[in-house]
Amino acid sequence: MSKIQYLIGVDGGGTGTRICIAGPDGIEKVRSDGGASALGQGIDKAWLNISQAIKAGFAALGIDEPDFAQCAVGLGMSGVHNPAWAEEFKQKNPGFAKIVVETDGFSTLLGATNGQHGGIIAIGTGSIGEAWLPDGQRLEVGGWGFPTSDEGSGAFLGLKAINHVQRIIDGRRPVTEFGRKLLSITGQTKAEIFNWMGQMKQGECASLSPVVMEFGASDEYARAFLQEAGQEIEQIGLALRAHHADLPLAICGGGLSEALRPYIPADFLASTLRPQKDSCAGALILIYQALA
Amino acid sequence: MSKIQYLIGVDGGGTGTRICIAGPDGIEKVRSDGGASALGQGIDKAWLNISQAIKAGFAALGIDEPDFAQCAVGLGMSGVHNPAWAEEFKQKNPGFAKIVVETDGFSTLLGATNGQHGGIIAIGTGSIGEAWLPDGQRLEVGGWGFPTSDEGSGAFLGLKAINHVQRIIDGRRPVTEFGRKLLSITGQTKAEIFNWMGQMKQGECASLSPVVMEFGASDEYARAFLQEAGQEIEQIGLALRAHHADLPLAICGGGLSEALRPYIPADFLASTLRPQKDSCAGALILIYQALA
Repeated sequence: MSKIQYLIGVDGGGTGTRICIAGPDGIEKVRSDGGASALGQGIDKAWLNISQAIKAGFAALGIDEPDFAQCAVGLGMSGVHNPAWAEEFKQKNPGFAKIVVETDGFSTLLGATNGQHGGIIAIGTGSIGEAWLPDGQRLEVGGWGFPTSDEGSGAFLGLKAINHVQRIIDGRRPVTEFGRKLLSITGQTKAEIFNWMGQMKQGECASLSPVVMEFGASDEYARAFLQEAGQEIEQIGLALRAHHADLPLAICGGGLSEALRPYIPADFLASTLRPQKDSCAGALILIYQALA
Repeated sequence: MSKIQYLIGVDGGGTGTRICIAGPDGIEKVRSDGGASALGQGIDKAWLNISQAIKAGFAALGIDEPDFAQCAVGLGMSGVHNPAWAEEFKQKNPGFAKIVVETDGFSTLLGATNGQHGGIIAIGTGSIGEAWLPDGQRLEVGGWGFPTSDEGSGAFLGLKAINHVQRIIDGRRPVTEFGRKLLSITGQTKAEIFNWMGQMKQGECASLSPVVMEFGASDEYARAFLQEAGQEIEQIGLALRAHHADLPLAICGGGLSEALRPYIPADFLASTLRPQKDSCAGALILIYQALA
Protein backbone atom coordinates (compact mmCIF):
# COMPACT_ATOMS: atom_id res chain seq x y z
CA MET A 1 0.00 0.00 0.00
CA SER A 2 3.06 2.29 -0.04
CA LYS A 3 1.94 3.78 -3.36
CA ILE A 4 -1.13 5.31 -1.66
CA GLN A 5 -0.46 8.97 -0.92
CA TYR A 6 -4.04 10.19 -0.40
CA LEU A 7 -7.12 9.00 1.44
CA ILE A 8 -10.40 10.41 0.16
CA GLY A 9 -13.88 10.42 1.69
CA VAL A 10 -16.97 10.77 -0.51
CA ASP A 11 -20.51 11.48 0.64
CA GLY A 12 -22.65 10.92 -2.47
CA GLY A 13 -26.32 11.86 -2.49
CA GLY A 14 -29.24 12.84 -4.64
CA THR A 15 -28.65 16.57 -4.48
CA GLY A 16 -24.84 16.78 -4.40
CA THR A 17 -21.50 15.17 -3.62
CA ARG A 18 -19.14 16.20 -0.83
CA ILE A 19 -15.54 15.01 -0.78
CA CYS A 20 -12.55 15.43 1.53
CA ILE A 21 -8.88 14.64 0.85
CA ALA A 22 -6.40 13.58 3.51
CA GLY A 23 -2.85 12.29 3.65
CA PRO A 24 -2.04 8.70 4.74
CA ASP A 25 -2.57 9.80 8.38
CA GLY A 26 -6.28 10.41 7.65
CA ILE A 27 -6.14 14.10 8.63
CA GLU A 28 -8.21 16.24 6.26
CA LYS A 29 -6.35 18.68 4.01
CA VAL A 30 -9.20 20.03 1.91
CA ARG A 31 -12.89 19.69 1.07
CA SER A 32 -14.77 20.19 -2.17
CA ASP A 33 -18.15 19.35 -3.64
CA GLY A 34 -19.93 18.56 -6.89
CA GLY A 35 -23.14 17.45 -8.53
CA ALA A 36 -25.50 14.67 -7.47
CA SER A 37 -24.20 11.09 -7.34
CA ALA A 38 -27.02 8.94 -5.96
CA LEU A 39 -26.68 5.61 -7.79
CA GLY A 40 -30.35 5.69 -8.79
CA GLN A 41 -29.57 8.68 -11.00
CA GLY A 42 -27.06 6.69 -13.06
CA ILE A 43 -23.73 5.02 -12.30
CA ASP A 44 -21.73 6.93 -14.96
CA LYS A 45 -23.12 10.24 -13.76
CA ALA A 46 -22.21 9.32 -10.19
CA TRP A 47 -18.55 8.57 -11.05
CA LEU A 48 -18.31 11.67 -13.26
CA ASN A 49 -19.51 13.99 -10.50
CA ILE A 50 -17.39 12.25 -7.86
CA SER A 51 -14.26 12.46 -10.08
CA GLN A 52 -14.87 16.13 -10.81
CA ALA A 53 -15.33 16.93 -7.12
CA ILE A 54 -12.09 15.07 -6.28
CA LYS A 55 -10.20 16.89 -9.06
CA ALA A 56 -11.53 20.19 -7.72
CA GLY A 57 -10.23 19.25 -4.29
CA PHE A 58 -6.77 18.44 -5.66
CA ALA A 59 -6.77 21.69 -7.65
CA ALA A 60 -7.30 23.53 -4.37
CA LEU A 61 -4.16 21.75 -3.11
CA GLY A 62 -2.27 22.92 -6.21
CA ILE A 63 -2.37 19.53 -7.95
CA ASP A 64 -3.95 19.85 -11.39
CA GLU A 65 -3.41 16.27 -12.64
CA PRO A 66 -3.98 13.94 -9.69
CA ASP A 67 -2.91 10.32 -10.10
CA PHE A 68 -5.93 8.27 -9.05
CA ALA A 69 -3.62 5.22 -8.66
CA GLN A 70 -2.15 6.97 -5.60
CA CYS A 71 -5.59 7.42 -4.01
CA ALA A 72 -7.73 5.15 -1.81
CA VAL A 73 -11.37 6.21 -1.57
CA GLY A 74 -14.12 5.51 0.94
CA LEU A 75 -17.57 6.14 -0.47
CA GLY A 76 -20.82 6.49 1.43
CA MET A 77 -23.34 6.38 -1.40
CA SER A 78 -27.08 6.79 -1.66
CA GLY A 79 -28.48 3.80 -3.62
CA VAL A 80 -26.03 1.12 -2.47
CA HIS A 81 -28.95 -0.86 -1.02
CA ASN A 82 -29.60 -1.97 -4.60
CA PRO A 83 -27.07 -4.79 -5.10
CA ALA A 84 -27.00 -4.47 -8.91
CA TRP A 85 -26.22 -0.76 -8.74
CA ALA A 86 -23.55 -1.33 -6.08
CA GLU A 87 -21.84 -3.99 -8.20
CA GLU A 88 -21.86 -1.87 -11.35
CA PHE A 89 -20.54 1.09 -9.39
CA LYS A 90 -17.60 -0.96 -8.07
CA GLN A 91 -16.89 -2.35 -11.56
CA LYS A 92 -16.62 1.18 -12.97
CA ASN A 93 -13.94 2.41 -10.53
CA PRO A 94 -12.10 4.98 -12.69
CA GLY A 95 -8.61 3.92 -11.59
CA PHE A 96 -8.42 4.50 -7.84
CA ALA A 97 -5.96 2.12 -6.10
CA LYS A 98 -8.64 0.96 -3.69
CA ILE A 99 -12.28 1.77 -3.12
CA VAL A 100 -14.62 0.79 -0.29
CA VAL A 101 -18.30 1.37 -0.98
CA GLU A 102 -20.93 1.65 1.73
CA THR A 103 -24.36 3.17 2.22
CA ASP A 104 -24.50 6.85 3.05
CA GLY A 105 -26.19 5.72 6.25
CA PHE A 106 -23.08 3.82 7.29
CA SER A 107 -20.73 6.70 6.47
CA THR A 108 -23.04 8.94 8.50
CA LEU A 109 -22.73 6.45 11.36
CA LEU A 110 -18.92 6.34 11.16
CA GLY A 111 -18.83 10.13 11.16
CA ALA A 112 -21.27 10.47 14.04
CA THR A 113 -19.30 8.01 16.21
CA ASN A 114 -15.90 9.10 14.89
CA GLY A 115 -15.27 5.55 13.71
CA GLN A 116 -16.47 3.75 16.83
CA HIS A 117 -19.23 1.17 17.14
CA GLY A 118 -22.60 2.73 17.78
CA GLY A 119 -25.80 3.77 16.12
CA ILE A 120 -27.57 6.65 14.45
CA ILE A 121 -31.06 7.76 13.64
CA ALA A 122 -30.83 9.81 10.46
CA ILE A 123 -33.77 12.19 9.88
CA GLY A 124 -34.20 14.08 6.63
CA THR A 125 -36.58 13.74 3.69
CA GLY A 126 -36.62 10.06 4.68
CA SER A 127 -35.41 8.41 7.87
CA ILE A 128 -33.51 5.32 8.99
CA GLY A 129 -31.90 3.86 12.07
CA GLU A 130 -28.57 2.08 11.67
CA ALA A 131 -26.20 0.41 14.11
CA TRP A 132 -22.76 -1.18 13.96
CA LEU A 133 -22.32 -3.42 16.98
CA PRO A 134 -19.06 -4.35 18.72
CA ASP A 135 -19.37 -7.91 17.30
CA GLY A 136 -19.45 -6.44 13.80
CA GLN A 137 -23.18 -7.02 13.30
CA ARG A 138 -25.05 -4.37 11.31
CA LEU A 139 -28.67 -3.40 12.00
CA GLU A 140 -31.22 -1.29 10.16
CA VAL A 141 -34.58 -0.11 11.49
CA GLY A 142 -37.08 1.78 9.36
CA GLY A 143 -35.99 3.26 6.05
CA TRP A 144 -38.40 1.09 4.05
CA GLY A 145 -39.26 4.03 1.84
CA PHE A 146 -42.07 6.36 0.82
CA PRO A 147 -45.00 6.31 1.44
CA THR A 148 -45.22 3.33 3.82
CA SER A 149 -42.24 3.99 6.11
CA ASP A 150 -39.54 6.60 6.85
CA GLU A 151 -41.26 7.34 10.15
CA GLY A 152 -40.45 10.68 11.76
CA SER A 153 -39.03 12.12 8.51
CA GLY A 154 -39.91 15.21 6.51
CA ALA A 155 -42.00 13.11 4.12
CA PHE A 156 -43.76 11.46 7.10
CA LEU A 157 -44.77 14.92 8.34
CA GLY A 158 -45.70 15.97 4.82
CA LEU A 159 -48.09 13.03 4.40
CA LYS A 160 -49.87 14.13 7.58
CA ALA A 161 -49.94 17.72 6.31
CA ILE A 162 -51.53 16.92 2.94
CA ASN A 163 -54.08 14.67 4.65
CA HIS A 164 -54.81 17.59 7.00
CA VAL A 165 -55.46 19.81 3.96
CA GLN A 166 -57.94 17.24 2.61
CA ARG A 167 -59.78 17.09 5.94
CA ILE A 168 -60.00 20.86 6.13
CA ILE A 169 -61.45 21.11 2.63
CA ASP A 170 -64.12 18.47 3.21
CA GLY A 171 -65.04 19.61 6.71
CA ARG A 172 -63.45 16.93 8.88
CA ARG A 173 -61.20 19.44 10.62
CA PRO A 174 -61.40 23.19 11.30
CA VAL A 175 -59.28 25.56 9.26
CA THR A 176 -56.63 27.32 11.34
CA GLU A 177 -53.60 29.51 10.54
CA PHE A 178 -51.62 26.28 10.10
CA GLY A 179 -54.15 25.04 7.57
CA ARG A 180 -54.23 28.36 5.75
CA LYS A 181 -50.44 28.28 5.36
CA LEU A 182 -50.59 24.75 3.96
CA LEU A 183 -53.38 25.75 1.55
CA SER A 184 -51.24 28.66 0.33
CA ILE A 185 -48.77 25.99 -0.91
CA THR A 186 -51.08 23.22 -2.15
CA GLY A 187 -53.77 25.49 -3.59
CA GLN A 188 -57.19 26.31 -2.17
CA THR A 189 -59.56 24.36 -4.41
CA LYS A 190 -60.10 20.64 -4.83
CA ALA A 191 -58.83 20.86 -8.41
CA GLU A 192 -55.64 22.66 -7.32
CA ILE A 193 -55.03 20.22 -4.47
CA PHE A 194 -55.59 17.18 -6.70
CA ASN A 195 -53.11 18.71 -9.13
CA TRP A 196 -50.55 19.30 -6.36
CA MET A 197 -50.98 15.72 -5.11
CA GLY A 198 -50.65 14.36 -8.63
CA GLN A 199 -47.09 15.69 -8.73
CA MET A 200 -46.28 14.76 -5.16
CA LYS A 201 -43.31 12.45 -4.74
CA GLN A 202 -41.30 12.05 -1.56
CA GLY A 203 -39.49 15.37 -1.94
CA GLU A 204 -42.59 17.46 -2.64
CA CYS A 205 -44.31 15.80 0.28
CA ALA A 206 -41.40 16.61 2.61
CA SER A 207 -41.50 20.24 1.43
CA LEU A 208 -44.59 20.71 3.64
CA SER A 209 -42.69 19.71 6.79
CA PRO A 210 -41.21 23.18 7.52
CA VAL A 211 -44.80 24.48 7.79
CA VAL A 212 -45.59 21.78 10.34
CA MET A 213 -42.49 22.88 12.28
CA GLU A 214 -43.48 26.53 12.07
CA PHE A 215 -46.82 25.85 13.77
CA GLY A 216 -45.67 23.25 16.30
CA ALA A 217 -45.93 25.71 19.18
CA SER A 218 -49.28 27.24 18.21
CA ASP A 219 -51.42 24.58 16.50
CA GLU A 220 -52.69 21.41 18.15
CA TYR A 221 -52.70 19.41 14.90
CA ALA A 222 -49.16 20.44 13.94
CA ARG A 223 -48.01 19.65 17.48
CA ALA A 224 -49.64 16.21 17.39
CA PHE A 225 -47.89 15.39 14.09
CA LEU A 226 -44.53 16.42 15.54
CA GLN A 227 -45.07 14.49 18.75
CA GLU A 228 -45.90 11.39 16.71
CA ALA A 229 -42.69 11.92 14.72
CA GLY A 230 -40.76 12.23 17.98
CA GLN A 231 -42.28 9.00 19.31
CA GLU A 232 -41.39 7.21 16.07
CA ILE A 233 -37.78 8.35 16.45
CA GLU A 234 -37.72 6.89 19.95
CA GLN A 235 -39.22 3.63 18.61
CA ILE A 236 -36.42 3.36 16.07
CA GLY A 237 -33.82 3.97 18.77
CA LEU A 238 -35.36 1.42 21.15
CA ALA A 239 -35.41 -1.22 18.39
CA LEU A 240 -31.69 -0.60 17.77
CA ARG A 241 -30.95 -0.82 21.50
CA ALA A 242 -32.97 -4.05 21.83
CA HIS A 243 -29.83 -5.73 20.46
CA HIS A 244 -27.36 -3.81 22.61
CA ALA A 245 -28.81 -1.97 25.59
CA ASP A 246 -26.12 0.69 26.07
CA LEU A 247 -25.55 1.37 22.37
CA PRO A 248 -24.28 4.95 21.88
CA LEU A 249 -26.85 6.59 19.62
CA ALA A 250 -26.69 9.89 17.73
CA ILE A 251 -29.60 11.67 16.07
CA CYS A 252 -28.35 13.09 12.75
CA GLY A 253 -29.63 14.96 9.78
CA GLY A 254 -29.31 18.69 10.11
CA GLY A 255 -32.21 21.14 10.22
CA LEU A 256 -35.22 18.88 10.60
CA SER A 257 -33.58 16.62 13.18
CA GLU A 258 -32.58 19.68 15.22
CA ALA A 259 -36.05 21.20 15.02
CA LEU A 260 -37.66 17.90 16.06
CA ARG A 261 -35.65 17.60 19.29
CA PRO A 262 -38.31 19.28 21.49
CA TYR A 263 -40.82 16.66 20.33
CA ILE A 264 -38.65 13.60 21.04
CA PRO A 265 -39.51 11.98 24.40
CA ALA A 266 -37.15 13.67 26.87
CA ASP A 267 -35.76 10.57 28.60
CA PHE A 268 -34.85 9.01 25.29
CA LEU A 269 -33.40 12.24 23.90
CA ALA A 270 -31.21 12.60 27.01
CA SER A 271 -29.76 9.15 26.30
CA THR A 272 -28.54 10.19 22.83
CA LEU A 273 -25.41 11.99 21.68
CA ARG A 274 -24.67 14.73 19.17
CA PRO A 275 -22.93 13.43 16.03
CA GLN A 276 -19.17 14.07 16.19
CA LYS A 277 -18.47 14.40 12.45
CA ASP A 278 -20.43 14.36 9.21
CA SER A 279 -20.93 11.69 6.56
CA CYS A 280 -18.01 12.90 4.41
CA ALA A 281 -15.64 12.60 7.37
CA GLY A 282 -17.23 9.20 8.06
CA ALA A 283 -16.39 8.07 4.51
CA LEU A 284 -12.78 9.08 5.14
CA ILE A 285 -12.79 7.01 8.35
CA LEU A 286 -14.21 4.11 6.31
CA ILE A 287 -11.19 3.99 3.99
CA TYR A 288 -8.73 4.74 6.81
CA GLN A 289 -10.07 1.75 8.78
CA ALA A 290 -10.09 -0.46 5.67
CA LEU A 291 -6.35 0.20 5.16
CA ALA A 292 -5.42 -0.10 8.83
CA MET B 1 -89.84 11.20 -25.16
CA SER B 2 -92.51 8.82 -26.45
CA LYS B 3 -89.94 7.00 -28.52
CA ILE B 4 -88.23 5.77 -25.34
CA GLN B 5 -89.30 2.20 -24.63
CA TYR B 6 -86.55 1.17 -22.24
CA LEU B 7 -84.76 2.68 -19.25
CA ILE B 8 -81.33 1.23 -18.49
CA GLY B 9 -79.11 1.52 -15.42
CA VAL B 10 -75.35 1.02 -15.69
CA ASP B 11 -72.88 0.58 -12.83
CA GLY B 12 -69.46 0.81 -14.46
CA GLY B 13 -66.31 0.02 -12.51
CA GLY B 14 -62.76 -1.13 -12.76
CA THR B 15 -63.46 -4.84 -12.46
CA GLY B 16 -66.78 -5.15 -14.31
CA THR B 17 -70.02 -3.58 -15.52
CA ARG B 18 -73.49 -4.36 -14.21
CA ILE B 19 -76.59 -3.27 -16.14
CA CYS B 20 -80.33 -3.52 -15.63
CA ILE B 21 -83.12 -2.94 -18.16
CA ALA B 22 -86.59 -1.62 -17.28
CA GLY B 23 -89.66 -0.45 -19.11
CA PRO B 24 -90.78 3.21 -19.01
CA ASP B 25 -92.20 2.56 -15.51
CA GLY B 26 -88.68 1.99 -14.17
CA ILE B 27 -89.40 -1.55 -12.98
CA GLU B 28 -86.50 -3.89 -13.70
CA LYS B 29 -87.07 -6.65 -16.27
CA VAL B 30 -83.58 -8.15 -16.45
CA ARG B 31 -79.95 -7.80 -15.36
CA SER B 32 -76.71 -8.60 -17.08
CA ASP B 33 -73.03 -7.85 -16.74
CA GLY B 34 -69.83 -7.40 -18.70
CA GLY B 35 -66.18 -6.39 -18.61
CA ALA B 36 -64.58 -3.42 -16.85
CA SER B 37 -65.67 0.10 -17.83
CA ALA B 38 -63.86 2.51 -15.47
CA LEU B 39 -63.12 5.58 -17.62
CA GLY B 40 -59.45 5.51 -16.62
CA GLN B 41 -59.08 2.24 -18.52
CA GLY B 42 -60.16 3.87 -21.81
CA ILE B 43 -63.37 5.51 -23.06
CA ASP B 44 -63.80 3.24 -26.09
CA LYS B 45 -63.30 0.14 -23.96
CA ALA B 46 -65.89 1.46 -21.49
CA TRP B 47 -68.57 1.98 -24.17
CA LEU B 48 -67.76 -1.37 -25.80
CA ASN B 49 -68.19 -3.29 -22.55
CA ILE B 50 -71.31 -1.33 -21.60
CA SER B 51 -72.90 -1.91 -25.04
CA GLN B 52 -72.10 -5.61 -24.90
CA ALA B 53 -73.61 -5.95 -21.43
CA ILE B 54 -76.77 -4.13 -22.56
CA LYS B 55 -77.05 -6.31 -25.68
CA ALA B 56 -76.68 -9.39 -23.47
CA GLY B 57 -79.53 -8.09 -21.31
CA PHE B 58 -81.77 -7.56 -24.33
CA ALA B 59 -80.86 -11.02 -25.64
CA ALA B 60 -82.14 -12.44 -22.34
CA LEU B 61 -85.43 -10.61 -23.08
CA GLY B 62 -85.51 -12.24 -26.53
CA ILE B 63 -84.44 -9.06 -28.38
CA ASP B 64 -81.36 -9.75 -30.46
CA GLU B 65 -81.07 -6.37 -32.24
CA PRO B 66 -81.99 -3.67 -29.72
CA ASP B 67 -82.62 -0.17 -31.05
CA PHE B 68 -80.46 2.10 -28.88
CA ALA B 69 -82.54 5.09 -30.08
CA GLN B 70 -85.43 3.68 -28.00
CA CYS B 71 -83.28 3.55 -24.85
CA ALA B 72 -82.46 6.14 -22.16
CA VAL B 73 -79.48 5.23 -19.98
CA GLY B 74 -78.36 6.32 -16.53
CA LEU B 75 -74.69 5.63 -15.92
CA GLY B 76 -72.86 5.61 -12.60
CA MET B 77 -69.26 5.48 -13.76
CA SER B 78 -65.92 5.17 -12.04
CA GLY B 79 -63.63 7.92 -13.36
CA VAL B 80 -66.22 10.65 -13.93
CA HIS B 81 -64.36 12.89 -11.45
CA ASN B 82 -61.96 13.58 -14.31
CA PRO B 83 -63.80 16.24 -16.39
CA ALA B 84 -61.94 15.46 -19.63
CA TRP B 85 -62.82 11.77 -19.42
CA ALA B 86 -66.45 12.57 -18.58
CA GLU B 87 -66.78 14.90 -21.58
CA GLU B 88 -65.22 12.41 -24.01
CA PHE B 89 -67.45 9.66 -22.63
CA LYS B 90 -70.58 11.77 -23.24
CA GLN B 91 -69.40 12.67 -26.74
CA LYS B 92 -69.02 9.02 -27.66
CA ASN B 93 -72.62 8.00 -26.78
CA PRO B 94 -73.17 5.12 -29.25
CA GLY B 95 -76.71 6.20 -30.18
CA PHE B 96 -78.82 6.07 -27.03
CA ALA B 97 -81.73 8.55 -27.08
CA LYS B 98 -80.59 10.09 -23.81
CA ILE B 99 -77.75 9.47 -21.37
CA VAL B 100 -77.16 10.87 -17.90
CA VAL B 101 -73.65 10.33 -16.55
CA GLU B 102 -72.78 10.47 -12.87
CA THR B 103 -70.11 9.13 -10.54
CA ASP B 104 -70.53 5.57 -9.32
CA GLY B 105 -70.67 7.14 -5.87
CA PHE B 106 -73.81 9.04 -6.78
CA SER B 107 -75.52 6.01 -8.33
CA THR B 108 -74.62 4.09 -5.16
CA LEU B 109 -76.27 6.90 -3.16
CA LEU B 110 -79.45 6.87 -5.27
CA GLY B 111 -79.66 3.11 -4.87
CA ALA B 112 -79.01 3.19 -1.12
CA THR B 113 -81.73 5.83 -0.56
CA ASN B 114 -84.03 4.46 -3.28
CA GLY B 115 -83.85 7.83 -5.02
CA GLN B 116 -84.34 10.03 -1.97
CA HIS B 117 -82.04 12.72 -0.62
CA GLY B 118 -79.51 11.35 1.83
CA GLY B 119 -75.93 10.22 2.15
CA ILE B 120 -73.67 7.23 1.93
CA ILE B 121 -70.28 6.15 3.13
CA ALA B 122 -68.94 3.75 0.52
CA ILE B 123 -66.19 1.42 1.77
CA GLY B 124 -64.25 -0.83 -0.59
CA THR B 125 -60.70 -0.74 -1.96
CA GLY B 126 -61.05 3.03 -1.50
CA SER B 127 -63.64 5.01 0.43
CA ILE B 128 -65.75 8.13 0.08
CA GLY B 129 -68.65 9.88 1.76
CA GLU B 130 -71.26 11.49 -0.47
CA ALA B 131 -74.48 13.36 0.23
CA TRP B 132 -77.34 14.80 -1.83
CA LEU B 133 -79.16 17.34 0.28
CA PRO B 134 -82.83 18.38 0.02
CA ASP B 135 -81.71 21.74 -1.44
CA GLY B 136 -79.94 19.88 -4.24
CA GLN B 137 -76.45 20.51 -2.84
CA ARG B 138 -73.91 17.73 -3.31
CA LEU B 139 -71.17 16.96 -0.78
CA GLU B 140 -68.10 14.74 -0.81
CA VAL B 141 -65.91 13.83 2.16
CA GLY B 142 -62.73 11.81 1.79
CA GLY B 143 -62.06 9.92 -1.41
CA TRP B 144 -58.90 11.92 -2.16
CA GLY B 145 -57.14 8.77 -3.30
CA PHE B 146 -54.28 6.44 -2.50
CA PRO B 147 -52.06 6.66 -0.48
CA THR B 148 -52.98 9.89 1.32
CA SER B 149 -56.72 9.40 1.85
CA ASP B 150 -59.51 6.79 1.44
CA GLU B 151 -59.70 6.48 5.21
CA GLY B 152 -61.32 3.34 6.55
CA SER B 153 -60.95 1.50 3.22
CA GLY B 154 -59.28 -1.76 2.28
CA ALA B 155 -56.21 0.11 1.06
CA PHE B 156 -56.14 2.13 4.31
CA LEU B 157 -55.99 -1.12 6.27
CA GLY B 158 -53.45 -2.54 3.82
CA LEU B 159 -51.07 0.41 4.35
CA LYS B 160 -51.17 -0.27 8.09
CA ALA B 161 -50.58 -3.97 7.44
CA ILE B 162 -47.50 -3.50 5.26
CA ASN B 163 -46.08 -1.00 7.75
CA HIS B 164 -46.73 -3.61 10.47
CA VAL B 165 -44.71 -6.13 8.43
CA GLN B 166 -41.80 -3.66 8.24
CA ARG B 167 -41.88 -3.09 12.00
CA ILE B 168 -41.90 -6.81 12.71
CA ILE B 169 -38.90 -7.42 10.47
CA ASP B 170 -36.79 -4.64 12.01
CA GLY B 171 -37.80 -5.36 15.60
CA ARG B 172 -40.17 -2.50 16.35
CA ARG B 173 -43.08 -4.86 17.00
CA PRO B 174 -43.38 -8.51 18.10
CA VAL B 175 -44.24 -11.16 15.54
CA THR B 176 -47.64 -12.74 16.19
CA GLU B 177 -49.90 -15.10 14.23
CA PHE B 178 -51.30 -11.99 12.48
CA GLY B 179 -47.80 -10.96 11.44
CA ARG B 180 -46.92 -14.48 10.31
CA LYS B 181 -50.00 -14.56 8.06
CA LEU B 182 -49.05 -11.20 6.54
CA LEU B 183 -45.47 -12.39 5.99
CA SER B 184 -46.80 -15.48 4.19
CA ILE B 185 -48.21 -13.04 1.59
CA THR B 186 -45.51 -10.36 1.38
CA GLY B 187 -42.54 -12.70 1.74
CA GLN B 188 -40.32 -13.24 4.77
CA THR B 189 -37.08 -11.49 3.82
CA LYS B 190 -36.28 -7.82 3.32
CA ALA B 191 -35.60 -8.48 -0.36
CA GLU B 192 -38.95 -10.23 -0.83
CA ILE B 193 -40.85 -7.53 1.04
CA PHE B 194 -39.16 -4.73 -0.92
CA ASN B 195 -40.11 -6.60 -4.09
CA TRP B 196 -43.73 -6.94 -2.94
CA MET B 197 -43.88 -3.23 -2.05
CA GLY B 198 -42.36 -2.29 -5.40
CA GLN B 199 -45.42 -3.76 -7.12
CA MET B 200 -47.90 -2.43 -4.57
CA LYS B 201 -50.60 -0.18 -5.95
CA GLN B 202 -53.93 0.50 -4.28
CA GLY B 203 -55.41 -2.89 -5.15
CA GLU B 204 -52.43 -4.94 -3.96
CA CYS B 205 -52.37 -2.92 -0.77
CA ALA B 206 -56.08 -3.55 -0.15
CA SER B 207 -55.51 -7.28 -0.71
CA LEU B 208 -53.95 -7.41 2.79
CA SER B 209 -57.15 -6.13 4.44
CA PRO B 210 -58.90 -9.54 4.70
CA VAL B 211 -55.98 -10.69 6.88
CA VAL B 212 -56.49 -7.69 9.16
CA MET B 213 -60.18 -8.65 9.40
CA GLU B 214 -59.33 -12.28 10.11
CA PHE B 215 -57.28 -11.30 13.17
CA GLY B 216 -59.47 -8.48 14.49
CA ALA B 217 -60.76 -10.59 17.36
CA SER B 218 -57.43 -12.12 18.37
CA ASP B 219 -54.64 -9.60 17.69
CA GLU B 220 -54.27 -6.22 19.37
CA TYR B 221 -52.58 -4.60 16.37
CA ALA B 222 -55.19 -5.84 13.89
CA ARG B 223 -57.94 -4.70 16.26
CA ALA B 224 -56.38 -1.24 16.61
CA PHE B 225 -56.19 -0.85 12.81
CA LEU B 226 -59.87 -1.83 12.49
CA GLN B 227 -60.95 0.49 15.30
CA GLU B 228 -59.10 3.35 13.62
CA ALA B 229 -60.90 2.51 10.36
CA GLY B 230 -64.23 2.52 12.21
CA GLN B 231 -63.48 5.91 13.75
CA GLU B 232 -62.56 7.30 10.34
CA ILE B 233 -65.89 6.08 8.96
CA GLU B 234 -67.66 7.94 11.77
CA GLN B 235 -65.61 11.08 11.01
CA ILE B 236 -66.73 10.98 7.39
CA GLY B 237 -70.35 10.60 8.48
CA LEU B 238 -70.13 13.43 11.00
CA ALA B 239 -68.64 15.74 8.36
CA LEU B 240 -71.55 14.95 6.02
CA ARG B 241 -74.06 15.57 8.83
CA ALA B 242 -72.40 18.86 9.76
CA HIS B 243 -74.34 20.28 6.80
CA HIS B 244 -77.62 18.55 7.63
CA ALA B 245 -77.93 17.10 11.12
CA ASP B 246 -80.55 14.43 10.48
CA LEU B 247 -79.22 13.30 7.10
CA PRO B 248 -80.18 9.67 6.45
CA LEU B 249 -76.90 7.86 5.99
CA ALA B 250 -76.17 4.37 4.68
CA ILE B 251 -72.87 2.49 4.92
CA CYS B 252 -72.35 0.67 1.62
CA GLY B 253 -69.80 -1.49 -0.08
CA GLY B 254 -70.35 -5.16 0.45
CA GLY B 255 -67.97 -7.49 2.26
CA LEU B 256 -65.49 -5.10 3.85
CA SER B 257 -68.14 -2.62 4.99
CA GLU B 258 -70.13 -5.45 6.58
CA ALA B 259 -67.07 -6.88 8.32
CA LEU B 260 -66.11 -3.44 9.66
CA ARG B 261 -69.46 -2.84 11.39
CA PRO B 262 -68.32 -4.18 14.80
CA TYR B 263 -65.49 -1.62 14.77
CA ILE B 264 -67.62 1.43 13.93
CA PRO B 265 -68.52 3.45 17.07
CA ALA B 266 -71.86 1.99 18.20
CA ASP B 267 -73.82 5.23 18.61
CA PHE B 268 -72.89 6.36 15.13
CA LEU B 269 -73.55 2.95 13.60
CA ALA B 270 -77.01 2.88 15.20
CA SER B 271 -77.80 6.19 13.47
CA THR B 272 -77.14 4.71 10.01
CA LEU B 273 -79.32 2.68 7.66
CA ARG B 274 -78.79 -0.34 5.48
CA PRO B 275 -78.67 0.53 1.76
CA GLN B 276 -82.02 -0.19 0.07
CA LYS B 277 -80.74 -1.00 -3.43
CA ASP B 278 -77.41 -1.27 -5.22
CA SER B 279 -75.55 1.08 -7.56
CA CYS B 280 -77.02 -0.47 -10.71
CA ALA B 281 -80.55 0.11 -9.41
CA GLY B 282 -79.42 3.62 -8.44
CA ALA B 283 -78.32 4.29 -12.02
CA LEU B 284 -81.78 3.22 -13.19
CA ILE B 285 -83.34 5.66 -10.70
CA LEU B 286 -80.98 8.34 -12.07
CA ILE B 287 -82.39 8.09 -15.59
CA TYR B 288 -85.98 7.61 -14.32
CA GLN B 289 -85.71 10.86 -12.33
CA ALA B 290 -84.05 12.67 -15.25
CA LEU B 291 -87.02 11.85 -17.49
CA ALA B 292 -89.67 12.57 -14.87
